[in-house]
Amino acid sequence: MGNLNFEMTNIETDKLAESGNDVNPIKTIIKASPYMQSYERLLLENKAWAAEKVADDPDFFNRLANLQRPDFLWIGCSDSRVPANEITGTQPGEIFVHRNVANLVVNTDVNLLSVVDYAVNHLNVKHIIVCGHYGCGGVQAAMTKRDYKPVLNMWLRNIKDVIRLHEDELNAIENMEQRVDRLVELNVIEQVKNLARKSSIQRAWRASGYPHLHGWVYGLKDGLINTVFEMPAGSPVDPIYELDDL
Amino acid sequence: MGNLNFEMTNIETDKLAESGNDVNPIKTIIKASPYMQSYERLLLENKAWAAEKVADDPDFFNRLANLQRPDFLWIGCSDSRVPANEITGTQPGEIFVHRNVANLVVNTDVNLLSVVDYAVNHLNVKHIIVCGHYGCGGVQAAMTKRDYKPVLNMWLRNIKDVIRLHEDELNAIENMEQRVDRLVELNVIEQVKNLARKSSIQRAWRASGYPHLHGWVYGLKDGLINTVFEMPAGSPVDPIYELDDL
Amino acid sequence: MGNLNFEMTNIETDKLAESGNDVNPIKTIIKASPYMQSYERLLLENKAWAAEKVADDPDFFNRLANLQRPDFLWIGCSDSRVPANEITGTQPGEIFVHRNVANLVVNTDVNLLSVVDYAVNHLNVKHIIVCGHYGCGGVQAAMTKRDYKPVLNMWLRNIKDVIRLHEDELNAIENMEQRVDRLVELNVIEQVKNLARKSSIQRAWRASGYPHLHGWVYGLKDGLINTVFEMPAGSPVDPIYELDDL
Amino acid sequence: MGNLNFEMTNIETDKLAESGNDVNPIKTIIKASPYMQSYERLLLENKAWAAEKVADDPDFFNRLANLQRPDFLWIGCSDSRVPANEITGTQPGEIFVHRNVANLVVNTDVNLLSVVDYAVNHLNVKHIIVCGHYGCGGVQAAMTKRDYKPVLNMWLRNIKDVIRLHEDELNAIENMEQRVDRLVELNVIEQVKNLARKSSIQRAWRASGYPHLHGWVYGLKDGLINTVFEMPAGSPVDPIYELDDL
Repeated sequence: MGNLNFEMTNIETDKLAESGNDVNPIKTIIKASPYMQSYERLLLENKAWAAEKVADDPDFFNRLANLQRPDFLWIGCSDSRVPANEITGTQPGEIFVHRNVANLVVNTDVNLLSVVDYAVNHLNVKHIIVCGHYGCGGVQAAMTKRDYKPVLNMWLRNIKDVIRLHEDELNAIENMEQRVDRLVELNVIEQVKNLARKSSIQRAWRASGYPHLHGWVYGLKDGLINTVFEMPAGSPVDPIYELDDL
Repeated sequence: MGNLNFEMTNIETDKLAESGNDVNPIKTIIKASPYMQSYERLLLENKAWAAEKVADDPDFFNRLANLQRPDFLWIGCSDSRVPANEITGTQPGEIFVHRNVANLVVNTDVNLLSVVDYAVNHLNVKHIIVCGHYGCGGVQAAMTKRDYKPVLNMWLRNIKDVIRLHEDELNAIENMEQRVDRLVELNVIEQVKNLARKSSIQRAWRASGYPHLHGWVYGLKDGLINTVFEMPAGSPVDPIYELDDL
Repeated sequence: MGNLNFEMTNIETDKLAESGNDVNPIKTIIKASPYMQSYERLLLENKAWAAEKVADDPDFFNRLANLQRPDFLWIGCSDSRVPANEITGTQPGEIFVHRNVANLVVNTDVNLLSVVDYAVNHLNVKHIIVCGHYGCGGVQAAMTKRDYKPVLNMWLRNIKDVIRLHEDELNAIENMEQRVDRLVELNVIEQVKNLARKSSIQRAWRASGYPHLHGWVYGLKDGLINTVFEMPAGSPVDPIYELDDL
Repeated sequence: MGNLNFEMTNIETDKLAESGNDVNPIKTIIKASPYMQSYERLLLENKAWAAEKVADDPDFFNRLANLQRPDFLWIGCSDSRVPANEITGTQPGEIFVHRNVANLVVNTDVNLLSVVDYAVNHLNVKHIIVCGHYGCGGVQAAMTKRDYKPVLNMWLRNIKDVIRLHEDELNAIENMEQRVDRLVELNVIEQVKNLARKSSIQRAWRASGYPHLHGWVYGLKDGLINTVFEMPAGSPVDPIYELDDL
């Protein structure tokens, strides 16, 4: 432990000095050690990160511990390459996050719905962002005839239902990569609409004028977010799903 | 609005110039602007982040786009203060992520189970980390007699079931903050065990010797992860839940 | 048997005194008593029924206890007016039954799917019948803009999705009762197709040539079943949902 | 086959002899046909049943069509040998019914919960009966270490959780059939308690004094219902699950 702390001190020294040299011992350890691929590396990195935060701002964690007041709920894909905070440059405390396979909003999913409920009614978030990503593996899987076994089959069925609703548009796209990417966009649009179709969102819109809904797609190839669909609070909802006695 | 657009134009100009100077104009704009609380700030930050990544490593996104081979599945709380990547110092591509209210593993939850299935059977992750955090609002809510309305009530019931299983231990803790924190730990332990009780995990253990299961709790007050429970692949499972013809 | 009747007579002494006749005293009591609205009536009726069965066929329950080999799975509405066995003249042992609000087949519903799994893979049923009924309250509810509160809203959303898929046809029907009844039929058709879209059904079709799928609608006004849709095992499935490596 | 048809003819002959009516042509058709094992038999039986009902009471269906006011919600097993109406001697219109594998009440199951919601808040049922049956195949399956594949595994996990809560009592029972039957009872008791743990039931208890909850177990071997657990409206609920601001 003492040794580890010492190393962390070294790291901080390096950073404070903004040095570009090769002395960072932890980083060196991390890179050099055969154990670095294991979960222990995450724990070492955590200690380094926490030490850095406190070095920069001794009150950082105290402030944060007493406050969760995010403006945003992020509903994104579980994909490892789309970390919500990093790609949006946000800090701990800023985004409430749910991530599942292919960022789906399913109307009977108590997991997702309890996240939305907590975010909207207890945290009063102002924005819900559904963020997909081009080349999404879940979306690609749903476009095949492959059997992904019971659990994934159940889940991917939701994407097949999106394909069904936009079959003509999709079939007209000959390039398969482009077809996947258009389905990624259409999927995000449908999931945003699924939120707007929920009574809890319609009720919140009337009560508070929030949350605004956003459909974004992240590009793995350029790191940029493409805004594909917006439903500001109070937007018209398809009359089939509109409730009027909320 | 016009002002904001103007600023964005500046950002793009910077990128086109591919400036490598020491003052990051985008960061300056972001900090200066009164519009920064809106979702547009996230988009601006995203552009800055992507530009920075490419400046550091022109091939960064190309490499990443073609590869998702994470060693880790992270099952964490949606809480905005516990961003998986940041607190573990991991990069995009390293952790597959699911986050829900109070990091629960529910045996009939197709959302979570499809994430686990994808991670274990398609990405072949080597570790699954269930990470709670001290002071968790969902856990605290489950300790009260308050009515959180239908959806959250359904979800929090899972935590009340954990309380029931450990009632004596919890009641013996008089300090309420400590009682919450012990329940946070017990909840993580039960969720890790819930994974081990799943046939898909037991099957993977036999077939591949993976994944190892880890129960961690993050401290909001110090930023440090506490390792509270480990189930290496092949650990004994309560005989009630053990399957022998996998 | 006499003993059983004697005991029942003792329980209901007062009531017996009211009737005094010797035909079927239990039945008489049941019809005469003001207590008949309570749950105790069901227990009395159960005793009468069991006694009657044994009187008719002393071996009835012995035979039945050792055998569950139904040919049919019935997926019907919970509505009290549509008891599966009675309206089909079937005996105990003949139909495996699931009933929910508006006889829905939802692709992430582990409750329904475990019933289907058990029926298809363990009981080897030869037919699955999805049976709706004209005038269905759940279907009517889904056609309104009324807020049925969180849980029912989640469930009825599945019917609203059926409306969306057949909006033009439904809107062309001016008479509202007829429109409801057509939606009842379309709902049954979609639910039958939902079964056919499942990998487990497609797999069973290839492996065994079963089960055949039937979409029926029961008429509350005449007691008759209307057959609206048939999918014999091996029927073509919409290519979007077809799996080819089962 | 011929033998079976012959027997049915005999049965029907007896009935006809009892009634002294003219020959029921539909029944005759049913008896004569070699297709009796197919689903078409159900449709023929349905026609016979409807005709019989109208013959007995020409206004039967008219009355029923306009009225669903059941006093009872039945949550029972899908098992073909436990038809709710028949074993309780109730008529169409008297019992609202949900049936799943092993009569489970799962706190995140929107299928079951929407049935309960509709029954309690829209039909105002006065009683909810959870009815298991001795020798239940689902319960037996959960007592084994057998892999029932993903979907059933998920569902049966709920029963394994009941085993865990009552492990000592169950292990003390050496006779395996008796152990299964005790688990059937314990499972029914836990499911009744699961209802009482729901906010919607607690709310209804305060608002209306209903519904009363009943835990019953049906005996396949004698056709009799055993009442094993009762929770009248307003019964005390384990404080962990009690809500006080409904």
